[in-house]
Amino acid sequence: MQGFGVHTSMWTMHWDRLGAERTIPAAAAYKMDFIEIALLDTSVVDAHHTRDLLAKHEMRAVCSLGLPRESWASVNPDGAIAHLIDAMDYTKEMGGEALSGVTYGGIGERSGVPPTEAEYDNIARALEVAAKYAKTLGIAFGIEPVNRYESHLINTSWQAKEMIDKIGADNIFIHLDTYHMNIEEKGAGNGILAAREHLRYIHLSESDRGTPGEGTCDWDEIFATLAAVEFKGGLAMESFINMPPQVGYGLGIWRPVANSFEEVMDKGLPFLRNKAAQYRLI
Amino acid sequence: MQGFGVHTSMWTMHWDRLGAERTIPAAAAYKMDFIEIALLDTSVVDAHHTRDLLAKHEMRAVCSLGLPRESWASVNPDGAIAHLIDAMDYTKEMGGEALSGVTYGGIGERSGVPPTEAEYDNIARALEVAAKYAKTLGIAFGIEPVNRYESHLINTSWQAKEMIDKIGADNIFIHLDTYHMNIEEKGAGNGILAAREHLRYIHLSESDRGTPGEGTCDWDEIFATLAAVEFKGGLAMESFINMPPQVGYGLGIWRPVANSFEEVMDKGLPFLRNKAAQYRLI
Amino acid sequence: MQGFGVHTSMWTMHWDRLGAERTIPAAAAYKMDFIEIALLDTSVVDAHHTRDLLAKHEMRAVCSLGLPRESWASVNPDGAIAHLIDAMDYTKEMGGEALSGVTYGGIGERSGVPPTEAEYDNIARALEVAAKYAKTLGIAFGIEPVNRYESHLINTSWQAKEMIDKIGADNIFIHLDTYHMNIEEKGAGNGILAAREHLRYIHLSESDRGTPGEGTCDWDEIFATLAAVEFKGGLAMESFINMPPQVGYGLGIWRPVANSFEEVMDKGLPFLRNKAAQYRLI
Amino acid sequence: MQGFGVHTSMWTMHWDRLGAERTIPAAAAYKMDFIEIALLDTSVVDAHHTRDLLAKHEMRAVCSLGLPRESWASVNPDGAIAHLIDAMDYTKEMGGEALSGVTYGGIGERSGVPPTEAEYDNIARALEVAAKYAKTLGIAFGIEPVNRYESHLINTSWQAKEMIDKIGADNIFIHLDTYHMNIEEKGAGNGILAAREHLRYIHLSESDRGTPGEGTCDWDEIFATLAAVEFKGGLAMESFINMPPQVGYGLGIWRPVANSFEEVMDKGLPFLRNKAAQYRLI
Repeated sequence: MQGFGVHTSMWTMHWDRLGAERTIPAAAAYKMDFIEIALLDTSVVDAHHTRDLLAKHEMRAVCSLGLPRESWASVNPDGAIAHLIDAMDYTKEMGGEALSGVTYGGIGERSGVPPTEAEYDNIARALEVAAKYAKTLGIAFGIEPVNRYESHLINTSWQAKEMIDKIGADNIFIHLDTYHMNIEEKGAGNGILAAREHLRYIHLSESDRGTPGEGTCDWDEIFATLAAVEFKGGLAMESFINMPPQVGYGLGIWRPVANSFEEVMDKGLPFLRNKAAQYRLI
Repeated sequence: MQGFGVHTSMWTMHWDRLGAERTIPAAAAYKMDFIEIALLDTSVVDAHHTRDLLAKHEMRAVCSLGLPRESWASVNPDGAIAHLIDAMDYTKEMGGEALSGVTYGGIGERSGVPPTEAEYDNIARALEVAAKYAKTLGIAFGIEPVNRYESHLINTSWQAKEMIDKIGADNIFIHLDTYHMNIEEKGAGNGILAAREHLRYIHLSESDRGTPGEGTCDWDEIFATLAAVEFKGGLAMESFINMPPQVGYGLGIWRPVANSFEEVMDKGLPFLRNKAAQYRLI
Repeated sequence: MQGFGVHTSMWTMHWDRLGAERTIPAAAAYKMDFIEIALLDTSVVDAHHTRDLLAKHEMRAVCSLGLPRESWASVNPDGAIAHLIDAMDYTKEMGGEALSGVTYGGIGERSGVPPTEAEYDNIARALEVAAKYAKTLGIAFGIEPVNRYESHLINTSWQAKEMIDKIGADNIFIHLDTYHMNIEEKGAGNGILAAREHLRYIHLSESDRGTPGEGTCDWDEIFATLAAVEFKGGLAMESFINMPPQVGYGLGIWRPVANSFEEVMDKGLPFLRNKAAQYRLI
Repeated sequence: MQGFGVHTSMWTMHWDRLGAERTIPAAAAYKMDFIEIALLDTSVVDAHHTRDLLAKHEMRAVCSLGLPRESWASVNPDGAIAHLIDAMDYTKEMGGEALSGVTYGGIGERSGVPPTEAEYDNIARALEVAAKYAKTLGIAFGIEPVNRYESHLINTSWQAKEMIDKIGADNIFIHLDTYHMNIEEKGAGNGILAAREHLRYIHLSESDRGTPGEGTCDWDEIFATLAAVEFKGGLAMESFINMPPQVGYGLGIWRPVANSFEEVMDKGLPFLRNKAAQYRLI
């Protein structure tokens, strides 16, 4: 989890052999340091095939997910644990370095009322077990705060930090996302400050999840603060231009938020790389 | 709809006699030009009582709402029309100048898939009838784009403009909200540009719906663009610090987004007024 | 004065035949709509040669200058008039569309005390005659506010507007510069607002006069406000990376403010064009 | 040098008994933690009187200056040393904690060409002696980069850092100024990053030196980066609304940059304090 990467949603949301074959060489052609694989359904994944392709293209990988409804940690911590263990096994098998994302619940999970201590206790129990398992595998394990509409549980950096403190685990990292921070934090910089001691990964995602550089995110503040906290983790560009309906629902994406793949890759990507270089982060 | 106002959620979400009595003198004490009343349930409203209080305090009013599930215009345009007519009658009776908000659907309405032409046709039919009725009453009628999670129907200024063009009504105005624009527009200024010919009302709401000036909204860009399009409409501060659960759900507010009422009124309000004055909007 | 252009300082500060030959084809290769020629010394200019080169490359041109010390309008309005008439003759002869810049004084002119009415009267007299002469030639004539260190006379949009109002000329335009606005205006947007009725030309120059997109200028606010005032004039990128000492003094450029020509043209130029396109200005 | 202070130019530019008596109680009334005294002419200073007033009002103080022309360190290092020693003696006598500012040269010093190694060598020699003397007195000693028009010598954080490295002194600190950074740095945050290991003092000054919060400085980026580098030094508001002509020349201030003292103190000061509190810097 270092350098500049990209979420594989730019090429596929279906990580089977075809998805991997379409994505890994393409990411290598854009000189990415790593890719982030959405591990939504391990049953379609051929882990050895991915591992070989990654090796062939000298590409590193991080996996991410949200939990399916039947395994939400807030209500079914054992189900969550089982799901996370399966995902970590696949991550390891593929040669991935970390499992992260909404590892504590569903994307779109909302009880309708503020989070309860019981929910947080369940989550803490699941994450604690998962973090220990990650340690045995030698991979990293992260949690990503998401905005109020995608979860009622962990919306801010501060809440993520409190969860880690509650668990007491030394190997859970915080995974931030500029899109969510733009909604939830009192300044994106403030979000980075709250997470600083645990921060190892960040999604660089524009305010509308479209083309980076064409929204409301204050990229100078984001990169200056990352540099100031001496961030050494992975910078992963994320843009959702091509969502299958089942994913679009949780994300609330009903229209194309960028004109094209090319706009994101040929305008947005250079924009982010130039900014990251300006602040000596890559 | 001119000058600087405030959403009454700062004092109450329940517009009965008690809510009105708590709110109108308080808003007058803060030297507001107008208030925005959330007309969620007309059955609790005493319209003559509100009218008298407004007159006594020389306060103007705008009403706003979202439609209840059984009257969503996308699926039940006749139900929407009946609901809007009732709300407009109350607005008129209270001495209000306009009805606006999510007048085309529910706050939190999401079909799970992108909007269809049939949904837009239904909405257009309902809004057309409502706009005509508003004209007979001599009040204004507006539509407010909201973010992707609060509706799948009208998320951007451009979509609002297209809806007005589709209807062909000359008396529907666009009501923007900086909180939603911060998520949906390619720059808040761009949202104002797209709406410019129909724009008559704007919610000044911070990126987390907390204290204005302490989030990620670019207020200079917002006010400069408003001044540049020669905006003459109402500026309404909106902050949701005290939400009842049934409203909190649609809005996704699970934690206090500001420390206190005083923080919003004594820090956020002067911040917005200073900025509005800097750009000669008030 | 329409479209997207570039100041010729990117290639030369010496507009002789060699400078023109180095610049015009290069600007055409970057698909510029126009160039801005610094008309510092007409004695080295071969006007017909420039005119032919411009025609051959279908390139339009604007000329700009600051007055030499012996012809500062504040103290020697007749000298200024003579200098401006000569420059306008050359501009016309080269096929240029306008003469602009610090047409009212020296770059670096400072009396040491605030401007006096007598200075403004002298300037008004010179500009009035120059503007009339420009009209007879069929070219446009502009004035550019510059920061407090480059002149004590016209630092803000508002002062430029007041000068035009004082003269009463209908054909003097305001030429803004984002670098100077970043120092002098209460928000760059506010500077554009003050100039709006006379604004026909703008220098897009970063806060350190280096690579656009890598400084402190708020480009979204700038472009949103330009779009909102329905700006139709020329957008001219300006970056001073290669200054001869005699020019560097007035500008105070003592170090390279960009790493290279390529950085400005291959990072800064696409940045500005993408932003201008995002706001539908080009 | 901790907490939130103010430059005494808000009350006086003449630090005699009258100036001190007007300023110190007023600063205390605004609950300042410290004041910055412009030590332009020690001959008018009554050091014991100042010391007593500071003690009486429990106010701390920092002194600042620019060198007079006859003592510019670049050409007359011995003159500079003598001037600095005198100023440090007064600072100590008054009970001040530090001497800072343009301690390496004149405000407005410009040779007309880029700085030379000989100039830097002279400056290094003077600063080295001054820093040693400061150590014997037990006060801190700082250098403030200023913009290209106020000096050709040290314009950026990076240049300040290089000067300190050249000298090898362990007790010279960097004193930044947001007004100068807004012109010189590739993002104010970047300026803070370059200075981080030596940064102990910062002028919070708006882009036009007027009312903080009403210019082009990106205060969120500034405060977020300060917090991220764990800044513990003094935050000093600086606004120049009332300059005597001899100071105005170097600063290039020819018009009122704020409407009034009250505007700065009643709008600008709360703005900065709210922001500093938002980022937990005070």
